[in-house]
Amino acid sequence: MDTIQSDNYPIYFDNSIDELVNFVNKGGYSRFFILTDENTGIHCLPLLKSKIGSEEGYDLIEITAGEESKDIDFCIGVWKMLIDFGADRKSLLINLGGGVISDLGGFAASTFKRGIDFVHVPTTLLSQVDASVGGKTGIDIDSIKNIIGTFTQPKAVFIHYDFLKTLPARQILSGLAEMLKHGLIQDAAYWAELKTSDLKNPSAELVHRSVQIKNKITIEDPHEKGIRKALNFGHTIGHAVETNSLINDADPLSHGEAIAIGMICESYLAHKKTGLSLDELNEIVKVLSDLYPRYTIQESSFDTLLAHMLKDKKNQGGKINCTLLTHIGQCNIDNICTEAELCESLLYYINL
Amino acid sequence: MDTIQSDNYPIYFDNSIDELVNFVNKGGYSRFFILTDENTGIHCLPLLKSKIGSEEGYDLIEITAGEESKDIDFCIGVWKMLIDFGADRKSLLINLGGGVISDLGGFAASTFKRGIDFVHVPTTLLSQVDASVGGKTGIDIDSIKNIIGTFTQPKAVFIHYDFLKTLPARQILSGLAEMLKHGLIQDAAYWAELKTSDLKNPSAELVHRSVQIKNKITIEDPHEKGIRKALNFGHTIGHAVETNSLINDADPLSHGEAIAIGMICESYLAHKKTGLSLDELNEIVKVLSDLYPRYTIQESSFDTLLAHMLKDKKNQGGKINCTLLTHIGQCNIDNICTEAELCESLLYYINL
Ligand SMILES: NC(=O)c1ccc[n+]([C@@H]2O[C@H](COP(=O)([O-])OP(=O)(O)OC[C@H]3O[C@@H](n4cnc5c(N)ncnc54)[C@H](O)[C@@H]3O)[C@@H](O)[C@H]2O)c1
Ligand SMILES: NC(=O)c1ccc[n+]([C@@H]2O[C@H](COP(=O)([O-])OP(=O)(O)OC[C@H]3O[C@@H](n4cnc5c(N)ncnc54)[C@H](O)[C@@H]3O)[C@@H](O)[C@H]2O)c1
Ligand SMILES: [Zn+2]
Ligand SMILES: [Zn+2]
Repeated sequence: MDTIQSDNYPIYFDNSIDELVNFVNKGGYSRFFILTDENTGIHCLPLLKSKIGSEEGYDLIEITAGEESKDIDFCIGVWKMLIDFGADRKSLLINLGGGVISDLGGFAASTFKRGIDFVHVPTTLLSQVDASVGGKTGIDIDSIKNIIGTFTQPKAVFIHYDFLKTLPARQILSGLAEMLKHGLIQDAAYWAELKTSDLKNPSAELVHRSVQIKNKITIEDPHEKGIRKALNFGHTIGHAVETNSLINDADPLSHGEAIAIGMICESYLAHKKTGLSLDELNEIVKVLSDLYPRYTIQESSFDTLLAHMLKDKKNQGGKINCTLLTHIGQCNIDNICTEAELCESLLYYINL
Repeated sequence: MDTIQSDNYPIYFDNSIDELVNFVNKGGYSRFFILTDENTGIHCLPLLKSKIGSEEGYDLIEITAGEESKDIDFCIGVWKMLIDFGADRKSLLINLGGGVISDLGGFAASTFKRGIDFVHVPTTLLSQVDASVGGKTGIDIDSIKNIIGTFTQPKAVFIHYDFLKTLPARQILSGLAEMLKHGLIQDAAYWAELKTSDLKNPSAELVHRSVQIKNKITIEDPHEKGIRKALNFGHTIGHAVETNSLINDADPLSHGEAIAIGMICESYLAHKKTGLSLDELNEIVKVLSDLYPRYTIQESSFDTLLAHMLKDKKNQGGKINCTLLTHIGQCNIDNICTEAELCESLLYYINL
């Protein structure tokens, strides 16, 4: 599959791990560091090690798996290990893992000695089609997601599809929600193709298409002043539901599961406000409901959900903004939605 | 005095506090925050408050005075206050203080929600002629200076000369070292003028000239790939002496005092290696020795000093680099100096 050219950096698909070795050897780096978590250390690192060969010239930094590690405390830990290992300005950080690793590693590298080079080797579906592309880095403070971060591009991204083989089914579904989103906001043909595919095992070609869409949008609007907001479809309500679930549920929703709920609610709002037809709404709801488990939202939690939406860093001056579809494959950004409308859309989900 | 145009932002001199009020009113910000330390809260904030008028629309964040506050822990404190005060992406941070405030505030702002706007109102001589110009932000970890930071430009800089009236004499001398450096590396006429001025009270015009020089160099080479390294003159050895003094002395050297020592040693190296004449060396040593107190360096500390130089983030691959003068007003970057040469230059200082 074709290498995708992003904002000054390539996104490799074919023989991507060989390309990585090539990149490291030719980059003129004084040394390099590989950031992994417990799982990618087991499932993905061996392949890298076997291709890189010698143990010299690099050090490993491993963190605990999970969103809790995307915290400032772990970030300080990464910085201190870079210091202890003697990283200089010509060092390279290789982020081998899911979105937690690429967000945290990208932030740590972009601020270490005012910025050292980093590359992503995304190993989850979510990070392949979403987190590794677009130049956002971020960490959490007090569980406030991505409250601290930078816009910094990696020097390259290496997508090795086969890493997905060890990924649990629920993680595949989580990344899939973003792929469906890409079709819905930008590409009706892609959506149509997705609908009829084996979605529990999205093909390498479908992954490639999603990366193309995400890449195109973020190149056009790297700092999210306009069209990049399209990518927030499903996320205004979805993020609030996700946050609430993280706080209250013993087995919280995955990101994709929450975004699927958000996409249903926001499609309902689109039907009400921006002309999405009833047929299209029903089609979207059918596809998502077939893939994602039902989730119980209590009416008594609406106030809390609205409070989460208001705190979202995308919103300014006390107004809640949504990206809404006008058709499948097209959307409109910056639609202010009232609290009444948002509650109505949650009720729509509850009563499905 | 003329406003100096920097890399997309203005540096105001005349009526700068009125310009600040203007900027805040016209900037379309949702709200703003003023970062001060204990001293600027007392000496500088009242003027701002009187010009801004109402207490509405802004909040104050005050930190302890001193380099210890330029730490990741204080930075987290600033981030958390911004969160608690409800700062959004359209918020503005005003950094009112010396280099500690502008470095810390600049870093905190450049990473908060992936970057909010900030401006500097430098209140020390050092920050007026050096720290507030050039787009470097930074914080320390485990006392390793500026190990974490970004290259991010402020939206404007407002230099109010009269703030220097409350600055202790030793702080004036600290900033003066950078002004002398500006003359030595870039502008022989400026150096000649400085030599014959009342240097314990450098005039507003001399401040303006220094800002012009620093600004010109950093615009040409914002990321320190080449000519910006000229600004490191005196700093390879000076930083090591400073770090050592901070660790060991009850009353440690100021930055400028350490840089003055560094400039003497590195001028000696320049005489040995890059053709600085003996007359010029003697002239530099005379000016600096008249201004700055003698300081005792033990020969037994040379190893420690060399170790500090090796750890300096400017140096790569175990080699120590110096910026050396070729003449007064001209310099050469990237001169590798051996440990023997560096020790010889320290001996030169000791035996003066
Ligand atoms: N920067 C962006 O633009 C962007 C976009 C979307 C999401 N994100 C961020 O991404 C994060 C979520 O990413 P994620 O879902 O990849 O989470 P993750 O990195 O936590 O990975 C999920 C789980 O899968 C494991 N894992 C990773 N690769 C594996 C493999 N090949 N085989 C087996 N297990 C593997 C991980 O150890 C982890 O337990 C969030 O923090 C989110 O904010 C960022
Ligand atoms: N970013 C850069 O390019 C750059 C360049 C040079 C130095 N720096 C950084 O700047 C810092 C040093 O700056 P500094 O010397 O301004 O230190 P500082 O900010 O600590 O100020 C020195 C002291 O003066 C006090 N003070 C400030 N303004 C005053 C006023 N008007 N009246 C009375 N007291 C006042 C402060 O409270 C403090 O106690 C260092 O951390 C250094 O790394 C950065
Ligand atoms: Zn998402
Ligand atoms: Zn300095």
